[in-house]
Amino acid sequence: MAKRKLRMGMVGGGPGAFIGEVHRKAARMDGSIELVAGAFDIDPKKSKQMGRELYLDSTRVYNNYNEMIEKELALPEDERIDFVSITTPNNWHFPIARDFLKAGFHVMCEKPMTLNVKEAKELREIVRKTRKVFGLMHNYTGYPMVKCARDMIKSGELGKIRKIVVEYPQGWLATPVEKTGNQQAGWRTDPKQSGGGGCLGDIGTHAENLAEYITGLKITDVCAELTSFVKGRKLDDDVNCIVKFSKGAKGLLHASQISVGQENSLGIWVYGEEKAIEWHQEDPNTLIVKSLNGPEQVWRRGNDYVGKTSPAAARATRVPAGHPEAFIEAFANVYCNFAQTVLARIERKKADPLITDFPNVTDGLRGMQFIETVLASAKSAQKWTKFKK
Amino acid sequence: MAKRKLRMGMVGGGPGAFIGEVHRKAARMDGSIELVAGAFDIDPKKSKQMGRELYLDSTRVYNNYNEMIEKELALPEDERIDFVSITTPNNWHFPIARDFLKAGFHVMCEKPMTLNVKEAKELREIVRKTRKVFGLMHNYTGYPMVKCARDMIKSGELGKIRKIVVEYPQGWLATPVEKTGNQQAGWRTDPKQSGGGGCLGDIGTHAENLAEYITGLKITDVCAELTSFVKGRKLDDDVNCIVKFSKGAKGLLHASQISVGQENSLGIWVYGEEKAIEWHQEDPNTLIVKSLNGPEQVWRRGNDYVGKTSPAAARATRVPAGHPEAFIEAFANVYCNFAQTVLARIERKKADPLITDFPNVTDGLRGMQFIETVLASAKSAQKWTKFKK
Amino acid sequence: MAKRKLRMGMVGGGPGAFIGEVHRKAARMDGSIELVAGAFDIDPKKSKQMGRELYLDSTRVYNNYNEMIEKELALPEDERIDFVSITTPNNWHFPIARDFLKAGFHVMCEKPMTLNVKEAKELREIVRKTRKVFGLMHNYTGYPMVKCARDMIKSGELGKIRKIVVEYPQGWLATPVEKTGNQQAGWRTDPKQSGGGGCLGDIGTHAENLAEYITGLKITDVCAELTSFVKGRKLDDDVNCIVKFSKGAKGLLHASQISVGQENSLGIWVYGEEKAIEWHQEDPNTLIVKSLNGPEQVWRRGNDYVGKTSPAAARATRVPAGHPEAFIEAFANVYCNFAQTVLARIERKKADPLITDFPNVTDGLRGMQFIETVLASAKSAQKWTKFKK
Amino acid sequence: MAKRKLRMGMVGGGPGAFIGEVHRKAARMDGSIELVAGAFDIDPKKSKQMGRELYLDSTRVYNNYNEMIEKELALPEDERIDFVSITTPNNWHFPIARDFLKAGFHVMCEKPMTLNVKEAKELREIVRKTRKVFGLMHNYTGYPMVKCARDMIKSGELGKIRKIVVEYPQGWLATPVEKTGNQQAGWRTDPKQSGGGGCLGDIGTHAENLAEYITGLKITDVCAELTSFVKGRKLDDDVNCIVKFSKGAKGLLHASQISVGQENSLGIWVYGEEKAIEWHQEDPNTLIVKSLNGPEQVWRRGNDYVGKTSPAAARATRVPAGHPEAFIEAFANVYCNFAQTVLARIERKKADPLITDFPNVTDGLRGMQFIETVLASAKSAQKWTKFKK
Repeated sequence: MAKRKLRMGMVGGGPGAFIGEVHRKAARMDGSIELVAGAFDIDPKKSKQMGRELYLDSTRVYNNYNEMIEKELALPEDERIDFVSITTPNNWHFPIARDFLKAGFHVMCEKPMTLNVKEAKELREIVRKTRKVFGLMHNYTGYPMVKCARDMIKSGELGKIRKIVVEYPQGWLATPVEKTGNQQAGWRTDPKQSGGGGCLGDIGTHAENLAEYITGLKITDVCAELTSFVKGRKLDDDVNCIVKFSKGAKGLLHASQISVGQENSLGIWVYGEEKAIEWHQEDPNTLIVKSLNGPEQVWRRGNDYVGKTSPAAARATRVPAGHPEAFIEAFANVYCNFAQTVLARIERKKADPLITDFPNVTDGLRGMQFIETVLASAKSAQKWTKFKK
Repeated sequence: MAKRKLRMGMVGGGPGAFIGEVHRKAARMDGSIELVAGAFDIDPKKSKQMGRELYLDSTRVYNNYNEMIEKELALPEDERIDFVSITTPNNWHFPIARDFLKAGFHVMCEKPMTLNVKEAKELREIVRKTRKVFGLMHNYTGYPMVKCARDMIKSGELGKIRKIVVEYPQGWLATPVEKTGNQQAGWRTDPKQSGGGGCLGDIGTHAENLAEYITGLKITDVCAELTSFVKGRKLDDDVNCIVKFSKGAKGLLHASQISVGQENSLGIWVYGEEKAIEWHQEDPNTLIVKSLNGPEQVWRRGNDYVGKTSPAAARATRVPAGHPEAFIEAFANVYCNFAQTVLARIERKKADPLITDFPNVTDGLRGMQFIETVLASAKSAQKWTKFKK
Repeated sequence: MAKRKLRMGMVGGGPGAFIGEVHRKAARMDGSIELVAGAFDIDPKKSKQMGRELYLDSTRVYNNYNEMIEKELALPEDERIDFVSITTPNNWHFPIARDFLKAGFHVMCEKPMTLNVKEAKELREIVRKTRKVFGLMHNYTGYPMVKCARDMIKSGELGKIRKIVVEYPQGWLATPVEKTGNQQAGWRTDPKQSGGGGCLGDIGTHAENLAEYITGLKITDVCAELTSFVKGRKLDDDVNCIVKFSKGAKGLLHASQISVGQENSLGIWVYGEEKAIEWHQEDPNTLIVKSLNGPEQVWRRGNDYVGKTSPAAARATRVPAGHPEAFIEAFANVYCNFAQTVLARIERKKADPLITDFPNVTDGLRGMQFIETVLASAKSAQKWTKFKK
Repeated sequence: MAKRKLRMGMVGGGPGAFIGEVHRKAARMDGSIELVAGAFDIDPKKSKQMGRELYLDSTRVYNNYNEMIEKELALPEDERIDFVSITTPNNWHFPIARDFLKAGFHVMCEKPMTLNVKEAKELREIVRKTRKVFGLMHNYTGYPMVKCARDMIKSGELGKIRKIVVEYPQGWLATPVEKTGNQQAGWRTDPKQSGGGGCLGDIGTHAENLAEYITGLKITDVCAELTSFVKGRKLDDDVNCIVKFSKGAKGLLHASQISVGQENSLGIWVYGEEKAIEWHQEDPNTLIVKSLNGPEQVWRRGNDYVGKTSPAAARATRVPAGHPEAFIEAFANVYCNFAQTVLARIERKKADPLITDFPNVTDGLRGMQFIETVLASAKSAQKWTKFKK
């Protein structure tokens, strides 16, 4: 147990934002992180308003992130924030992360990490040099049954992996909602704020990250088709890929934001030579395990047999089986491990692999490489495009 | 928006407790409640240990709840706790609630509220006289889709209600785990700590509360069979009831803790003359709506059409459709409404019905009456026993 | 393999009938039964019309069942029907079955077998004396996964049975469709044609039969509540029972025809000391198996592991796993075993228990006893009514 | 109503065959087709044995299909078979179909129709010239809810179609079962008997046919990856394709026989601009319908609202909602329409489009073109291969 709560600052997450408040709820959940400072909006008035709603000391609600860095550094070390969470649109991730890292703060950042591979590599270098902890919010890897799947595969239970199908259909951009003033849709469909990938960057990267996290394999080649189905949309809203993975595995990765009626239906199937698993984000407490010669098994979060297979799943579990845990809890699991790693770094201790199990700058770089690989493949007449290095 | 966070104290929830920590996570989630004091365990050492784990000021971690009342009252009003959460075994609920209410504190209490109807009526009288806010943690009514079902029925959408089936099977007490040192099982199967109902009090009351909350009807007659399947167990571990409701509705209520392999499978079906609904706690984001002549509909938390039918469901929703919410969020919804009602009381304002929508002392009394009615029916050779007043 | 097809006659199943045509499809499916004669309707013209639609020799389409008996007996033995299928409204089952048995024909009869226990006992006596084969169409026991559940329980896999929940909700009689000329609804809600039980006789008996078939236990005591929710309906349309079974098991049996939106949702849960099973008629190829300490298993018809546990399930399977079988196939399984038993009787051989595994006159008698027990319990102020002998 | 049963002959379907017996059960189900002749096995002894098991007149059980043609032609027209069903391994489909058509018989043929496009085109020409009825057993289009989906899309209910995902995972060839004497696996993995496609021809063509049948669109371009995961297997056992459809729709088509634990999990998702549908072969009585702004709907076979949307679905329905229909019934629906079309041809009447709704020689040709297109794409380094003409 740590001797104190970690002090958190936030950039982004102003009034009307979705993901910023999720970060705050997740950070609060386990009682070991306290939000104490923020620059919540590009509009200083809105930032102040958000600070009041969050009961923050007004002297620590800043006009912009540069001021935040400057003034936090001016505070005594035992008041100053330990880390910052970045929940702005994509184009701001890189400069903010860079500047906080260089100023000596640990960083938790929304994905996708940067706008391109170049920035991502630069950030990786900065993390390496500053020796600060960098967490990336690929929240879906925080689900206990995702960790259980990963541990099951790592143990060899499935045998050699042959086929992976990962899909992420949503329907909320099936009409041009970006033209109706929808704030979430607005920046996501704007190349300046989102980068070159639309659906690809927003959710395709989650699919890529989930597949690589669960299987431990790496995508090596991509054959992609990108489409913008909604008239006038500048970025893709539908992604179809055939993929090759390391060690001879193959599969499909598809994502969509025009799949009418789909909510947030991230799902994955992994087929090995002996067994297969299947997991769905909208039913996250369940992991389906299939085998060659026996009945399908329905593994459920919170049971003893899960913990025996996966200490990481047990560690990421708060309430007993049948008392469902969900999206915010998975988010909180990323925060929990990130926070304990930060504490270990502060106390100059080595953190256990169970604790450092959260997405980091390398995952962020792979995400950017994935985006650029898919964009290149989509433009190519050749079937296969090598995964960009 | 309130001007300050509410200050919360807790009795119970020491090391190894399950529900106390759920209360804390739920109270933390939305950032408007702060835990500042506690008497967490009947063993003062364990209480202190828990206080440290929670980063509390050690002067506000007490040896027992009496000391807590006394010393909190001695604090300036703007430091003192606003309310206490009671998460002890059942037999302590009544005296602690009574004493805090009389000392001028608002109270959030775990269910079942007391050990018997007599205590429950006394508590209701105390709440009436002290004019303090009393919340009872029937957490399952906190789920958005439960609120949606309630509002749908209230609007007359289902027509006159005919049949209600509510069930709550669990399997964790299928073997005598209370003899293996399981702390949760220990007090739940001990009449001194649990009162006269075992499974009946622990989860049967949730089934009763859910059915009455959703339908707005009241149980009027019960025909019950109680069983202790596990040898040597003093309290029932299985409950089967035929029930009559007000306005001519009928149905079944059954609960069990020996239903091997069931986790926490609370479910309800309500059949009206025109439509029917179905909801399952283990899949809480979904409400199934059936009708006479059209396809079944699958209503999902977070969608616009849900909010149009049920502002209460919309209000109880934190993240968009497809980003599942679950047990802790439902708990947090009870805290959220309780807290806002406390604030309104503090500010001497009248709270909106959307805000006072949380289980209260009357629900607690009905729970105790239900337990005593079922116990009486189980002993009777007559088919029907009137609901105890 | 038999040397010839069995020759089948039919009483009932005229134009517009539902179950008669199901009998015919089921009897045809495996190619070992041929329909050659019939008295299909109480109206001779309609009987003739049906005969033509079935491509029958017009000389073997009769005006009534008495004529059918007489004229079939006049045919040479190697042309004459081997057995008759009775698919009339309930009130005709007894006299027709009696007369065909006495005339030397084997009989397949729809359920419920007779109008009352008295007739049922008389029929049992006739079957005993005539030594003819009598099959009763409790078709739900024909499903392979029902047989698998039965064999699993018989082997002791679940341990001692504690609790059984069986339910059969339908919604098609939620409005007074019997007043709209609906032929199916008409006779089912008419006491003269249906006997004393409405929903109870029509589908409650299926629930009783399924529970006793799967578990091998017998209902010993019933506590019942019957309701006619639809105004003016003479028979019950909703049945709620608490039941005691032999060997200390307890449970619930409920059936309904006013459960809006439910189609034909027969389902059963059996909880033993070690394991539990769950089966649903609308998803008949799946048997869910739960246990104390491991993941839920989803057993699926057609797999090797099913056949190892249950040769009866394997025998009742026509196509591989994943190629679903359903209602008509289950029906055909009853016909298949009935037919092979008839052949064995003709050839004076003893039939294997795998072959005689179909519902018979004893099941029919229990069904009538169940109806009379529930009717008596529903009228009684006492909680428990002993199962009628 | 026809005046007589149709007379059916069969080539293939000898002892141990799977699909031949399914054809027979399906043909029998509705009582309007009678199997009267056959050449069931390449081994005349086995053919005779099968004839005896089917109670056939031994003079009409032939040594080979040539003899069958010759001797049937020698019979009086009112005894002679009306049509032949071909259920041999793939390589025999073409010559048998050709010869029966030329001899004046109607033909029902298993899929894939021929070994290659060349044969398929020749067959189409023969059908055109002989004016005989040719049915192809793409049985999955026989399911009522598939027809409902098709009619819903045809009516414009979904709006312009954007994305189609069709998948067909099986697991039964995940190990080299063809080396263990498994007859089904043997010929399917042998290029001489199966043609150039393994999984592709066996089930990939079903996926292609289902997608085109439901949507009314045609595949125009394919980007394919074929894999043989099992060592030593000569044909593909896994198929991944990105596809373009006519009218701007895009999607994915994948099939697999190494997807461990999958039984026969054909499924399809079609996303339009307004609505989407989803259907799964293992749960065939259900069609999921999603929309932009309302709750998901679960359409269920047998309900009035289904019949109003789709007369074809109603026509393909035998038993009421909740009484599930499945694989054999879908098969029987193809036979039913085929048979009525044959009758209309015999009676020189024009058949209604509801009746001619069964897969035909054009579907068979598209299947062969699909196989050759995918084989060409799999060998190509280019991303897109035009659908072969």
